[in-house]
Amino acid sequence: MGENRFAVGVLGATGAVGQKLVTLLAGHPWFEIVSLVASSRSRGKRYGEAVHWLESRPPEPKVAAMRLEEAVDPLACDLVISALDADTAQVIEPTLARAGLPVFSNASSHRGEAAVPLLVPEVNAEHLELVRRQQFGDGFIVANPNCSVAGLVLALKPLVDAFGVEAVQVTTMQALSGAGYPGVPALDAVGNVIPHIEGEDEKIENEPRKIFGTLGSGGVELHHMVISAQANRVPVPEGHLLSVAVRLGCRAKLAEVREALDGFASPIVGLGLPSAPPRPLEVCDDPSHPQPRLHATSADGMMVRIGRLRRCPVLDVRFVALVHNTVRGAAGAALLNAELAVRQGFVRRREGRARTALTPLAAFAW
Amino acid sequence: MGENRFAVGVLGATGAVGQKLVTLLAGHPWFEIVSLVASSRSRGKRYGEAVHWLESRPPEPKVAAMRLEEAVDPLACDLVISALDADTAQVIEPTLARAGLPVFSNASSHRGEAAVPLLVPEVNAEHLELVRRQQFGDGFIVANPNCSVAGLVLALKPLVDAFGVEAVQVTTMQALSGAGYPGVPALDAVGNVIPHIEGEDEKIENEPRKIFGTLGSGGVELHHMVISAQANRVPVPEGHLLSVAVRLGCRAKLAEVREALDGFASPIVGLGLPSAPPRPLEVCDDPSHPQPRLHATSADGMMVRIGRLRRCPVLDVRFVALVHNTVRGAAGAALLNAELAVRQGFVRRREGRARTALTPLAAFAW
Amino acid sequence: MGENRFAVGVLGATGAVGQKLVTLLAGHPWFEIVSLVASSRSRGKRYGEAVHWLESRPPEPKVAAMRLEEAVDPLACDLVISALDADTAQVIEPTLARAGLPVFSNASSHRGEAAVPLLVPEVNAEHLELVRRQQFGDGFIVANPNCSVAGLVLALKPLVDAFGVEAVQVTTMQALSGAGYPGVPALDAVGNVIPHIEGEDEKIENEPRKIFGTLGSGGVELHHMVISAQANRVPVPEGHLLSVAVRLGCRAKLAEVREALDGFASPIVGLGLPSAPPRPLEVCDDPSHPQPRLHATSADGMMVRIGRLRRCPVLDVRFVALVHNTVRGAAGAALLNAELAVRQGFVRRREGRARTALTPLAAFAW
Amino acid sequence: MGENRFAVGVLGATGAVGQKLVTLLAGHPWFEIVSLVASSRSRGKRYGEAVHWLESRPPEPKVAAMRLEEAVDPLACDLVISALDADTAQVIEPTLARAGLPVFSNASSHRGEAAVPLLVPEVNAEHLELVRRQQFGDGFIVANPNCSVAGLVLALKPLVDAFGVEAVQVTTMQALSGAGYPGVPALDAVGNVIPHIEGEDEKIENEPRKIFGTLGSGGVELHHMVISAQANRVPVPEGHLLSVAVRLGCRAKLAEVREALDGFASPIVGLGLPSAPPRPLEVCDDPSHPQPRLHATSADGMMVRIGRLRRCPVLDVRFVALVHNTVRGAAGAALLNAELAVRQGFVRRREGRARTALTPLAAFAW
Repeated sequence: MGENRFAVGVLGATGAVGQKLVTLLAGHPWFEIVSLVASSRSRGKRYGEAVHWLESRPPEPKVAAMRLEEAVDPLACDLVISALDADTAQVIEPTLARAGLPVFSNASSHRGEAAVPLLVPEVNAEHLELVRRQQFGDGFIVANPNCSVAGLVLALKPLVDAFGVEAVQVTTMQALSGAGYPGVPALDAVGNVIPHIEGEDEKIENEPRKIFGTLGSGGVELHHMVISAQANRVPVPEGHLLSVAVRLGCRAKLAEVREALDGFASPIVGLGLPSAPPRPLEVCDDPSHPQPRLHATSADGMMVRIGRLRRCPVLDVRFVALVHNTVRGAAGAALLNAELAVRQGFVRRREGRARTALTPLAAFAW
Repeated sequence: MGENRFAVGVLGATGAVGQKLVTLLAGHPWFEIVSLVASSRSRGKRYGEAVHWLESRPPEPKVAAMRLEEAVDPLACDLVISALDADTAQVIEPTLARAGLPVFSNASSHRGEAAVPLLVPEVNAEHLELVRRQQFGDGFIVANPNCSVAGLVLALKPLVDAFGVEAVQVTTMQALSGAGYPGVPALDAVGNVIPHIEGEDEKIENEPRKIFGTLGSGGVELHHMVISAQANRVPVPEGHLLSVAVRLGCRAKLAEVREALDGFASPIVGLGLPSAPPRPLEVCDDPSHPQPRLHATSADGMMVRIGRLRRCPVLDVRFVALVHNTVRGAAGAALLNAELAVRQGFVRRREGRARTALTPLAAFAW
Repeated sequence: MGENRFAVGVLGATGAVGQKLVTLLAGHPWFEIVSLVASSRSRGKRYGEAVHWLESRPPEPKVAAMRLEEAVDPLACDLVISALDADTAQVIEPTLARAGLPVFSNASSHRGEAAVPLLVPEVNAEHLELVRRQQFGDGFIVANPNCSVAGLVLALKPLVDAFGVEAVQVTTMQALSGAGYPGVPALDAVGNVIPHIEGEDEKIENEPRKIFGTLGSGGVELHHMVISAQANRVPVPEGHLLSVAVRLGCRAKLAEVREALDGFASPIVGLGLPSAPPRPLEVCDDPSHPQPRLHATSADGMMVRIGRLRRCPVLDVRFVALVHNTVRGAAGAALLNAELAVRQGFVRRREGRARTALTPLAAFAW
Repeated sequence: MGENRFAVGVLGATGAVGQKLVTLLAGHPWFEIVSLVASSRSRGKRYGEAVHWLESRPPEPKVAAMRLEEAVDPLACDLVISALDADTAQVIEPTLARAGLPVFSNASSHRGEAAVPLLVPEVNAEHLELVRRQQFGDGFIVANPNCSVAGLVLALKPLVDAFGVEAVQVTTMQALSGAGYPGVPALDAVGNVIPHIEGEDEKIENEPRKIFGTLGSGGVELHHMVISAQANRVPVPEGHLLSVAVRLGCRAKLAEVREALDGFASPIVGLGLPSAPPRPLEVCDDPSHPQPRLHATSADGMMVRIGRLRRCPVLDVRFVALVHNTVRGAAGAALLNAELAVRQGFVRRREGRARTALTPLAAFAW
């Protein structure tokens, strides 16, 4: 292992988001994968054999050869990044945090907890402080938002800062990879749109209010914006497209709105986080852009692209936004959160990095 | 030719909407195709040889064997239904009307003209009266709206009647067939969404205001509703899906809105028009319905299906609507308009049905 | 129940092929659905509520309201049509046959049994006689072939008859519906081809040899043709396309081959079977035909269309063939077999049609 | 311009293959784009404005800012790579060669000419010598084969070498990008397969015979192998999949065939050509691989992957092969040819690299 790299465990490593994490961690300057954790079904198998690999670049040979562990195994990590499903994460993540591990989670399970930051570094880096209020000793949980929300809050951030945001109307056209694997049956997807994704509208309507909320003594005071969401599944492999209308907090010229969006300077750009894009936002001039197939991977999938910025005759402004759902909206989001926490000194190297013996999976109070 | 059937000419017969018209007219009880009109390039060729046929049922042998005519040929019809592109329709349709022919047009060219009704029989049948103000002698032009608008106004009609409608926010996910043939290149469509359709947003924002307008002495007084539209192209063969939020004119319970939509009784059901669906609207209970691939053809493509009816936290109510874009939104729309006009006595059988010699294609004043 | 119609039970009624059966049986002149059988999980639920409906036309209200039964329930039927998966069919179908029921099965479980006819009425109607050798009393099992094979043998039939067939090289491009529901994950299907379908190559290589085999005293003597198959899954909803090259048994001019194929007269056309197409085969002239999206449903999905008929420089002739996989290749195939058996007097009306009490699902010898 | 790099002109720079060339040339160690040539319609426009960009990475700013030239303009290049359509290439390429320029062409126009090598460096590098027989002075034309052929000959090369190849039966499933842009209409592509690509079968049946031919005094003596091809278009963005059966020249065990394919050592690996893959062939063990969406880009799109290697009961062996059609099958193929020619000393730096004044586009004898 590299002398200076943090030892990382990947939870849910065989799933679609887990695979993206493994891919993003290949050659990472700060992090090295030392544990791949999957369900008991795969325990002991080599990663390369157990995984139904979906990425176009194969996993590094070293990683493919690693044996899968279970979450109840003692993990010799400095931190873990979790791509677990919500039900499993609900139980496993607090157990690991209690065992002293920082957990950077893509799962929805703990996003609503008062002391868990719902973190997007360019938007609310200061919320990371919340982890000090968690009762896990050295360990803690940091959550990133839902994949559509990741794109939405980046697009809204400059508007919140410059004009205030009162209300948001959003219709999403979400990619297949957002449903994981096996996910959506092809017969439902090909040549079709499904106008419903279980639980998605609620997440889109609620999570931004916490992300834009104010850190107070009792946790995060929710932002007052009102959001209406209608999520659709479209036959696109990667890249969620959002059609967004916004009522601003004050009058603004369209040119001012454009300047706020396109000129948005990432507040964390000075921290040198490896996964942080130089520009997290860009406004397209071509009226037929952005498109998932052409633009989802722009800036390694961490940039959100805005298009069709116009006045809205019903609210105030209208635009579309494209977010790479499994990078900026999932694996890359959790990774960037981990990088921020490392840079801010929230993650310690564990001496000798002895394998952490977990407490049994008994009931625990949050 | 059937003794009692009206002789119909189809303009733009080789295009995608023209083919749908030919398909819908097969076995029609009132109408019989006597002329198929296409561009000069195809003139004199047999229809079955000139057309790149896209429907799954082949054209009737009798129709396939017909020779294509040009619009400048004298047409021995009682009426024409036009699937011409806008530029051609701009010139040809008034010429035919001036020659005494009723023209039922799917083109956008004349929709904005004061004396041209923008007609959806279940919504504004009374606007048909407008044709009496046209200056064409026996001939006249009736337009049907844009394909997305056809679905939108049917969904809005019961709300306008029961509660009033102040504002509409709509994001469309439109099928490939809406672009005609060859239309969208496959490389732009497969696994992709294009967040722009030229001119579409404007049509969706403007046409419903005329359709719901009031017939006055100076033409149609536009309805005051404000509409914001953002159109997208999705890789779906047939069926436009609309995500719609509405601010109503008065308070209404969700159950009342549901009852207004699902209980909507077609005001023209008593007229016995062959293409009129028994129920033009239906509300789905399954939250994943309606879907283009499963439901676009319900009730022969003339029914609009509503799903995901819910309160909207930003406006008042929210739903999705599915419309078969080339039937209810184009060919079936023009055909239904023709049926209404026949039933209401606006179309006369032309004695002897001699071929109409057109005036030359000179400039004409509207 | 109609006085004169046979009482039919549908096994596996909630699956994709089961739904197609229910759809094809709507308004059938000879058959009426009286039992819908599914797994114990759905027992007692109404069909319309338990099924994830995939057809564009909804089930008849009467059928949607029927309560699902289990296969161990006594069934008050004259015959059953089975869309069970292979593992379940392996156990259930002989049990039902032993209870006296004719079973028309789409499952692969019993296709290889010596006394089970692998029946395609236009190809080997005489094989139906085999059922007399089954040891089930009044009951028996008739199988139809694999979906690709259904198309292949119809295309080969005129060639076998006129010229003999020595060898067949076939590459298939198979539709998603062939994998049932949920079937292929959309992430594997969209914008992709999968060059493998478990067990499919073997079925395509073996089943035609039995179908074209000669009825002998010891069962069916296999035809000597050699077949090489390579199956692929393509992102098409319905319609398997086969690319076929054939070495004939004797010299033949291409025009003779064409005439044999296009002029093929269905040997069962005189029987008046409701699901039998007037012409089971048709040769397309357009070099870009047949195409799944345009032509799979021709002649209600029971016709096989041949295109690109040419000399093959390696074998003798080459062509593509299109078969509607869930109609001619599955539900329609089993139904046509049932119709043939009824017409040939193999199916008796069961007096009083009392519910058949099955013997327990104990081990049984074939 | 880099001191040591060759000055390259790209012909047909705005087309789909031209864009791929521009993408592959970004940062190329030997080559630098100095001229972008398109039709007269675009002449003088900036590349970034004239091109409908289809790649996910945008063109380099320096290249996007370049002004498009016409082929009749004098070009200050050391060599040109041509992505012209066949009709234009027919006229333009000899004119440029006559003007002293080496032309590396993806067009089909000159592939059949006796003195034009149909070159795949790993297969027939020695054919490059043919250019000495061309009558163009310093200039010459080198062609690369059709996109499907590029994959087929790489897969056949080890078999030809080890066992001989007598006959090949191939069915292709070809990607949309192979038709260029706009190419296939989406309505023809989505959820469909088109069993015909104009002229493709003939190219696949003829070109490999020249590529595997022997250099003789009168040109290339064609290889005697017989090929039967049937090309299909499938809704896949990139990556042609070929289903191939081969009759070998001698008996071979399947394990020997596998070893020949998987162990194939590139004969040009020692030349250090920048675009040459370390391994041009790889055999997959997973029976569901290779797949276009997952594997087309392996080894930067220059590797051909083989899967489903099995005995063929009709011929001898059977397999599928995947080739990235716009890289290995087009832009990368022409580029690799240019690299080989440079390394072998066929391309000279032109002194002062003064702009070459072309002779007028008069008729010329080959």
